[in-house]
Amino acid sequence: MAEDKKNVDESAEPQVPQAVVSRLSLYLRELQHLVRDGFETTSSTQLGRLLGFTDAQVRKDLAYFGQFGYPGIGYRCAELIAAIKKILGTNQSWSLAIVGMGNLGRALIGYRGFQQQGFEIVAGFDTDPAKIGNKIEGLQVYHLDEVTQVVREKNIRLAIVAVPSAVAQRVADALVSAGVEGILNFAPVTLALPKHIHTVGVDLAIELEQLSFNVVSKLAKGP
Amino acid sequence: MAEDKKNVDESAEPQVPQAVVSRLSLYLRELQHLVRDGFETTSSTQLGRLLGFTDAQVRKDLAYFGQFGYPGIGYRCAELIAAIKKILGTNQSWSLAIVGMGNLGRALIGYRGFQQQGFEIVAGFDTDPAKIGNKIEGLQVYHLDEVTQVVREKNIRLAIVAVPSAVAQRVADALVSAGVEGILNFAPVTLALPKHIHTVGVDLAIELEQLSFNVVSKLAKGP
Repeated sequence: MAEDKKNVDESAEPQVPQAVVSRLSLYLRELQHLVRDGFETTSSTQLGRLLGFTDAQVRKDLAYFGQFGYPGIGYRCAELIAAIKKILGTNQSWSLAIVGMGNLGRALIGYRGFQQQGFEIVAGFDTDPAKIGNKIEGLQVYHLDEVTQVVREKNIRLAIVAVPSAVAQRVADALVSAGVEGILNFAPVTLALPKHIHTVGVDLAIELEQLSFNVVSKLAKGP
Repeated sequence: MAEDKKNVDESAEPQVPQAVVSRLSLYLRELQHLVRDGFETTSSTQLGRLLGFTDAQVRKDLAYFGQFGYPGIGYRCAELIAAIKKILGTNQSWSLAIVGMGNLGRALIGYRGFQQQGFEIVAGFDTDPAKIGNKIEGLQVYHLDEVTQVVREKNIRLAIVAVPSAVAQRVADALVSAGVEGILNFAPVTLALPKHIHTVGVDLAIELEQLSFNVVSKLAKGP
């Protein structure tokens, strides 16, 4: 993930580094796994070990948001899950739009991980007349010119940009004008947007680097 | 990203936590940005500040792999970039396969970030007769039954699984039998694979959680 730190950091006061917020998601997933595995409490040491962080890093990260541990107990998993979801804003559900009904947009409509975490895709946008007014993968598709009206009617606050780089900025500008507050950008360009708009860019190559590392490090050690 | 830590950790000796390897990618991107911005050297403090880590965390992460800093200088950017690329295995290029020529597979063929970091997609696989033998998005598509031969001929070592959950395990088994060493899994299931095979699962909801956090935290503070 390449976060667009410039946009994000300058709008948060006091500043919480974006990487800390990213780690909150990792803590949340591990806590959910721990609960699934029957754990009721955990510790900064256990969470750190599961994720490869120092226990000091875990405590420092969580300390940005409050005091969550209990002396002699550690963290209560269910309580910390609820707290993190509230911090991340996923204790509520969010209505999303996707712009770009190409291969990536269609793929993302069907991505189940979004709905599991409280993100519901409620509208698609494109500029191809053949796609407008139809349903694609079960999602109603509108012309980008209708974005302001649809965003207002459906209370859409976040949008996914899945268009070619050449038009990504124009699309993002339209989304911002329509009132969208955050953009997940799959186009490999940096968007120039007002400071109060949050953007996150997706860098899937990081995941592949994890694989190549593991294959290479295995080879270095012999069979 | 939800890494399948079970597969990964048990095969690495001495164990480097997967999260540390993930941070290597982040350090690499920041170093590349620093070089682009004219910096020749940097420090654990600067790298940490850019990413929201403590300087101790940066030093501890890098110490897994060697001694990279110079007293009174810090890190030489170009040298550390080369070292990290070597550690990650991206100082060489990798040949990849994609299985599943649906929306996601087609989208990933066109994903530019892969090639930029040294990952080249050289073959696609599917089981739909209408797709076999054709080129999709410029990529030659083979039947999954041909996977062993194609993997050998094209020296494919990593694969991306972009098929429905119901068939993901069967596809992964076929890839492993064919000799693939690492799998990037977009199907929302945990794959049961031999210990020596590396898998990374992709969790795009984490990126959306970053957005919702920023929108919520902005609102909490008022306009």
